[in-house]
Amino acid sequence: MNFPELLEKTAERNDSIACLGLDPVIGKIPIKGKDSGKKIVKFYSEVLAAVSDSIAAVKPNYAFFSQYGFEGLKAMETLIAAAKKEKLPIILDAKRGDIGKSSEAYSKEVFEVWKADAVTVNPYMGSDSVAPFINYCGKGKGAYVLVRTSNPGANDLQRLGTETGRKLFMEVAAKVAQWHREGVGAVVGATNTAELEKITKFFTAANKKIPLLIPGVGAQGGSAREVAAVLRKNGSDIRIHRINSSSGISYAYEKTGSDDYVGAAVKAVKELNSEIGL
Amino acid sequence: MNFPELLEKTAERNDSIACLGLDPVIGKIPIKGKDSGKKIVKFYSEVLAAVSDSIAAVKPNYAFFSQYGFEGLKAMETLIAAAKKEKLPIILDAKRGDIGKSSEAYSKEVFEVWKADAVTVNPYMGSDSVAPFINYCGKGKGAYVLVRTSNPGANDLQRLGTETGRKLFMEVAAKVAQWHREGVGAVVGATNTAELEKITKFFTAANKKIPLLIPGVGAQGGSAREVAAVLRKNGSDIRIHRINSSSGISYAYEKTGSDDYVGAAVKAVKELNSEIGL
Repeated sequence: MNFPELLEKTAERNDSIACLGLDPVIGKIPIKGKDSGKKIVKFYSEVLAAVSDSIAAVKPNYAFFSQYGFEGLKAMETLIAAAKKEKLPIILDAKRGDIGKSSEAYSKEVFEVWKADAVTVNPYMGSDSVAPFINYCGKGKGAYVLVRTSNPGANDLQRLGTETGRKLFMEVAAKVAQWHREGVGAVVGATNTAELEKITKFFTAANKKIPLLIPGVGAQGGSAREVAAVLRKNGSDIRIHRINSSSGISYAYEKTGSDDYVGAAVKAVKELNSEIGL
Repeated sequence: MNFPELLEKTAERNDSIACLGLDPVIGKIPIKGKDSGKKIVKFYSEVLAAVSDSIAAVKPNYAFFSQYGFEGLKAMETLIAAAKKEKLPIILDAKRGDIGKSSEAYSKEVFEVWKADAVTVNPYMGSDSVAPFINYCGKGKGAYVLVRTSNPGANDLQRLGTETGRKLFMEVAAKVAQWHREGVGAVVGATNTAELEKITKFFTAANKKIPLLIPGVGAQGGSAREVAAVLRKNGSDIRIHRINSSSGISYAYEKTGSDDYVGAAVKAVKELNSEIGL
């Protein structure tokens, strides 16, 4: 099964295109104890068990685990195994990218050490830096290239006009279409739906089936409802795309005045799914 | 002591601006045994001990360690500690970069977990993605932003013309000058000395002391002699810059017909220093 098929199948089974982002922050986990790794595992295992039938992917963010050193990375390994048991696609959000040989080593890390199904990849260093990840797409894996990110700094370079008449992020979108094989996807933030629409139209016109990973709803200000509307109107199969929410699900309990993080997460997933309206 | 001072002091002490890149590949390490981690540590500890007085920084490449999972990362931790004992600046080549909060977590990983002195950073996501690393520059650390990389794929995006009349890599150079504080540096490959010269001239004209990390000599085709000539003629203090060689030093033994990797590494460092001609 190739990666887009895994995405479609999971979306159909769970009636969702929501992706649960795992961004552990010890100070936000209301569990007592001194062992950071154990707290992270307990917190996310409980959340995962409660929502695994109503989400369609899990996105561990490498940074949030690696900031806690080996115990953080051990926790990530454990949670990836738990999510795989639930047959959820694992998108490792690691923003990797280096010269060819180094990217080859990174692709081994991502797919063989961490056993992820897909990874996020930074395009700044160009084709040979992305190629090793794309080669794994031939083996059922996925690689989401950063096209238009959801953060304020995206304006600094991504929206610069270029000599081709396109902005840089559209130039990267063109590269993605050019590099495309089954499993190559794109990261496009939810915070600018006009540009999201431009990108989906471009991929549709290029006749490429390119799964989008869309972060930025909730805390960053993007609207899942608007994003879903854009995805729906441009003729691409919405089931291959993923709309991510991290703290909006895991830390939803903070806004409730209670420590019932599982209950709050279940409610947040339900709301996200209903906003998307699959 | 801020990071540029550490660079200058080390260069003066060891009469070198060479940086030893650590890119472990098990198949290239001529040591018997089953434990990958132990082999990596033994190999690089011996090389390091032999050359530590004649190099001026160490650059572990995260990808090459993380491809071996936890034992690879443990080996990296051990080698960083060994290099710190020799008072060598540690530049963690990890190409990090994500939205603000995630980059904040990455900066903790790099400086607090791995205890590096500096890190390489990818600029594609813009200012908030780079800011957390730059904030650490206020605490004596360094952050090298990728400007013009040494790989063939650098042509895909970095050399695109932009609306400002500058190529993208010069636009990034301008951002680096704008973001500058003591400790902010730039990665500029050795494979295109005309562009290296353009960048050094630009930083000199902007009156900014920006340490360059220059990979790409040896296997990738750049010439240390030509690079050093460029650095010398543009008025910047050559002692804050670093010219990196990885496999050209560690795996120099492969070209000798002998397994004396330490002897070959010592010879390769001597040659590199003499080409640079400090």
